[in-house]
Amino acid sequence: LNPLDLSDLDTPVALIDLPRMQHNIARMQQRMDALGVRFRPHVKTSKCSPVVDAQLAAGARGITVSTLKEAAHFHAQGITDILYAVSIVPTKLPQVLALRRAGCDLKVITDSVEGARAIVAFGQQHDAQLEVWIEIDSDGHRSGMLPDGQALLDVAQLLHSGGMVMGGVMTHAGSSYDFDTPEALERIAEQERAACVQAAERVRAVGVPCPVVSVGSTPTALFARQLDGVDEVRAGVYVFFDLVMHNVGVCTQDEIALSVLTTVIGHQQDKGWAIVDAGWMAMSRDRGTQRQKHDFGYGQITSLAGEPLAGYQLVSANQEHGILARAGAPDTDIAARFPIGTRLRILPNHACATGAQYPGYVAVGDDLEPQHWERLHGW
Amino acid sequence: LNPLDLSDLDTPVALIDLPRMQHNIARMQQRMDALGVRFRPHVKTSKCSPVVDAQLAAGARGITVSTLKEAAHFHAQGITDILYAVSIVPTKLPQVLALRRAGCDLKVITDSVEGARAIVAFGQQHDAQLEVWIEIDSDGHRSGMLPDGQALLDVAQLLHSGGMVMGGVMTHAGSSYDFDTPEALERIAEQERAACVQAAERVRAVGVPCPVVSVGSTPTALFARQLDGVDEVRAGVYVFFDLVMHNVGVCTQDEIALSVLTTVIGHQQDKGWAIVDAGWMAMSRDRGTQRQKHDFGYGQITSLAGEPLAGYQLVSANQEHGILARAGAPDTDIAARFPIGTRLRILPNHACATGAQYPGYVAVGDDLEPQHWERLHGW
Repeated sequence: LNPLDLSDLDTPVALIDLPRMQHNIARMQQRMDALGVRFRPHVKTSKCSPVVDAQLAAGARGITVSTLKEAAHFHAQGITDILYAVSIVPTKLPQVLALRRAGCDLKVITDSVEGARAIVAFGQQHDAQLEVWIEIDSDGHRSGMLPDGQALLDVAQLLHSGGMVMGGVMTHAGSSYDFDTPEALERIAEQERAACVQAAERVRAVGVPCPVVSVGSTPTALFARQLDGVDEVRAGVYVFFDLVMHNVGVCTQDEIALSVLTTVIGHQQDKGWAIVDAGWMAMSRDRGTQRQKHDFGYGQITSLAGEPLAGYQLVSANQEHGILARAGAPDTDIAARFPIGTRLRILPNHACATGAQYPGYVAVGDDLEPQHWERLHGW
Repeated sequence: LNPLDLSDLDTPVALIDLPRMQHNIARMQQRMDALGVRFRPHVKTSKCSPVVDAQLAAGARGITVSTLKEAAHFHAQGITDILYAVSIVPTKLPQVLALRRAGCDLKVITDSVEGARAIVAFGQQHDAQLEVWIEIDSDGHRSGMLPDGQALLDVAQLLHSGGMVMGGVMTHAGSSYDFDTPEALERIAEQERAACVQAAERVRAVGVPCPVVSVGSTPTALFARQLDGVDEVRAGVYVFFDLVMHNVGVCTQDEIALSVLTTVIGHQQDKGWAIVDAGWMAMSRDRGTQRQKHDFGYGQITSLAGEPLAGYQLVSANQEHGILARAGAPDTDIAARFPIGTRLRILPNHACATGAQYPGYVAVGDDLEPQHWERLHGW
């Protein structure tokens, strides 16, 4: 990365380090290929077409979205195989139907009898055979049906007998973010796999088709030892990684592909503070490393070239002001070390949250003019 | 507010309750008029033209901005008197000059000899007389120069002798957010006033003009007993208020004008959870009430009509999933209380952060079709 490439950019900027991103994409795809499963990236992390293009070019099959706006956008870009991975509610079904009638192979999910009934009623009313996957709760983390409960079978039969396509079961072991040892991550990956496979087998045993078993989170995708019975894996944040993932133990700081370019705008020398123009608006309010083994404040400071400056963090943030300081004793040479106008970069706690603060990214690589890439905002 | 007005909106939505907003604007303007000072609202909270129009219509004089993008946008809307309240760095001066040459009376701030030298050098090089205000540190909170130090006088003289317009001194008592009693808020308001007036008097005593003394934060603006020597006050979040401000003691929950409209998408009945389609992307990651006297999680749940449902909070948030639960014993009737499809509203911790998650607001009032109002995003 040539630091001169960045001198014309107004700060703050969300930078994508392209070689790192390509490395992360290749690493995940190779892992999925080795495990013998398809890979369906979750585009909620980047919400950005060139990033998703790179994921598909590397071998991904279809995408996962977190909003119908993402579904419409990526369908307009030519992607048809799309899973909307948030329980559908009746008010959103007209949008789903419009996308499907426009040629988008959009799949929705549900995790309740009430939800399934609403889908069937809507589908029958509009003479539409919607494809529905059932969400399984593999770790008590959020949504989903118990894999060993009767309600799961009721929902599968309701959808099937109601004329919908029972497309599969899916789960997300979100609790994997709470662990930080290989042993624990392998265990939660196996728990996620086993729960989802069990759910599929029980659905099939009552005579309802369940073609796809879909699991995933970045930590479990990277730590699963085997994925017997699983057809596809979903993961999102791996494309950029971040400090939360670093603490979980799935990446090094050198693999984090998203950073915020900032400029030093002042100092409070006695306190050892440099003030930068990246506050919480530039970083997001995400403090995900606060309860992890290493608290990075609002982010880890790096040089303009991307080398971490050990001990220097964004320790506090107002809307457009960030306070940069050294952990431990104040650095009372800070004004000389980082004079006004100095450009630095900040590794974020949570790439999905930091990216969302920007209308677009600037993608930078070794032999490349910086590229401006738009991202989606809102619903 | 007629709940029927909201049935066509896709959730999540950032709603502005117009009668509450107008009440908040009138309350602040009346207070400023009573104290005999001009009022310069900080538009970083709303970043929205119709909101700012309402503030100006009520009597505000000029605006404060947190980014040059805001300055350019509001200047294009016809506002000329603009203070950019983040220390200026050399790389941003060409944008400042372009705006001034386009007729914008844009004022910048600095808080260091180094910064003042850069402004003077740039101004002289471009034959431009920039207007500069000096930022004063009245509470050790962030940026600014000590009001009783020599460096303040050095900067004032540098700017003046270098041919710039020394336009005034300004401060922001950001630490007022850390208090929650009238006595403490009155004390910090007086400290803010006294520090800024002292700075102006010392600058004037060395023969440098210092026409404007500008102070402000929402809590100090509302709790100042007197503002002798002050010319203008700045405040931002008062226009919407939020749960942080409620905890500080400057508003009731009924005065909070920004809320997020959400839909129930599922349940985990045993845990007493309803899952809603407002996660951290809809609320922001701001957990500003965590260290205050009442922790509201990610937000206070209200009915569709806006009445707080005591004890019900957004207790946890993933990107597009929020977990709604009752404080204390789990509400195991939650699926019957809030069936799938139920629409609720959520009062946010921090209006500035929540608003930033949306490309626009929907403004609703008693006798009004909902209005879609755009807001600025990014830099």
